[in-house]
Amino acid sequence: MDLGENERIDDLELNNLKIIQNKKWFCFGIDSVLLSGFAKDIRKGSNILDLGAGNGILELLFSVKIPGSKITGIEVQENVYNLAKRNIELNNLENRIKIENINIKDFICETKFDAVVTNPPYKESGTGLKNTLDTKIIARHEVLATLEDFMKIASINLKDKCSMYMVNRAERIADIIELARKYKLEPKEVQFVHSKVKEPPVLVLVKATKNANRFLKIREPLYIYNEDGSYTDEVLKIYGKL
Amino acid sequence: MDLGENERIDDLELNNLKIIQNKKWFCFGIDSVLLSGFAKDIRKGSNILDLGAGNGILELLFSVKIPGSKITGIEVQENVYNLAKRNIELNNLENRIKIENINIKDFICETKFDAVVTNPPYKESGTGLKNTLDTKIIARHEVLATLEDFMKIASINLKDKCSMYMVNRAERIADIIELARKYKLEPKEVQFVHSKVKEPPVLVLVKATKNANRFLKIREPLYIYNEDGSYTDEVLKIYGKL
Repeated sequence: MDLGENERIDDLELNNLKIIQNKKWFCFGIDSVLLSGFAKDIRKGSNILDLGAGNGILELLFSVKIPGSKITGIEVQENVYNLAKRNIELNNLENRIKIENINIKDFICETKFDAVVTNPPYKESGTGLKNTLDTKIIARHEVLATLEDFMKIASINLKDKCSMYMVNRAERIADIIELARKYKLEPKEVQFVHSKVKEPPVLVLVKATKNANRFLKIREPLYIYNEDGSYTDEVLKIYGKL
Repeated sequence: MDLGENERIDDLELNNLKIIQNKKWFCFGIDSVLLSGFAKDIRKGSNILDLGAGNGILELLFSVKIPGSKITGIEVQENVYNLAKRNIELNNLENRIKIENINIKDFICETKFDAVVTNPPYKESGTGLKNTLDTKIIARHEVLATLEDFMKIASINLKDKCSMYMVNRAERIADIIELARKYKLEPKEVQFVHSKVKEPPVLVLVKATKNANRFLKIREPLYIYNEDGSYTDEVLKIYGKL
């Protein structure tokens, strides 16, 4: 496949998956990989919805992690949507993955999904940002859709008792919990991700189930690095290297 | 001081404080000590309200940790209230600490407080428990007051921009956040307490500030034990032993 300006192909080191990324846009990071590890209880063959597909990284990861799954990714930015489509073709996954070019706020599907996964923009839209339509800013800030939009649309498109899995900055946990309950997504599992053992968490992984009973399990912390800077065994396992 | 049946005197190993505990009731644990360490940013000379005083352990700890503070403890159970009063007298702290025998639900003070501290009942009241008026069950379960009552009364009795500090079971974090926001107590700091590094958290410490802006800081995890079962340096520091 031909590469455009600022593009590169990375090997995901997972089932020979490859991904084209645009170095000027938002490149996938460990957060997507951790979410695909956290959400491993999604059943085989599930219909999965990804709100905010970006370059299609979650689609590629879940196609491997959840055998037989079908994944629908929603991406508002046309240039990013085109890149995601190329990534699906590059890996010959057109029969498993579909990408739609629409704002997640407007995505209401008649057939409800077995699971929703999402790596939404982490930052609240500050003043002055709203008029900036830079690709990277839209991916990172709540410019075109807020955390509340993501929760609402996740809930609308989920089957009863089915779950949404989200990765976000640890500090957003209060907003996530409040909004999840507002839209009948009961927080069932939370895992904080720390760079190292004695540091505050940087990310949080949340599983919330539609119309479930109240009982929250907080998992053991997930540490990314050992003291010597190498990846911990837990992270290597998620990457499939252990 | 004379001891009654099932009573013992413990040395708090902090400024020669002593505490009478009834072995058949609820004896204080590390949770109260951790809360007194977490809430160390309460200003000197503050008027502090403790909702659910129990045997007066938080009153004793805060009288040392926050110099010049005045502490009002609310305790609904008359037998426990009497024990708390004896503990204040035992330590000659009548000029700093006052205990009131009333349900926290009914405590609305005209003069608002600079800080609220609370170690409320951790468990939701299950069916069948409501009629059990056992001293220990009332201390541990939401029989006479719910988490929502504690939040509401904390908010009513706090000055604007002043904070409530709570310790609870880690799993209650979703309820705490939702109810705190309902009563205009914005979660500002959260710290999870783990028995050991690789284990899920057992307790959570929360600081929530009345009518504050939204921004939550999640502190580094607090580990109680080292791998060899000894206390960590962080816990020894809170106990004043390092």
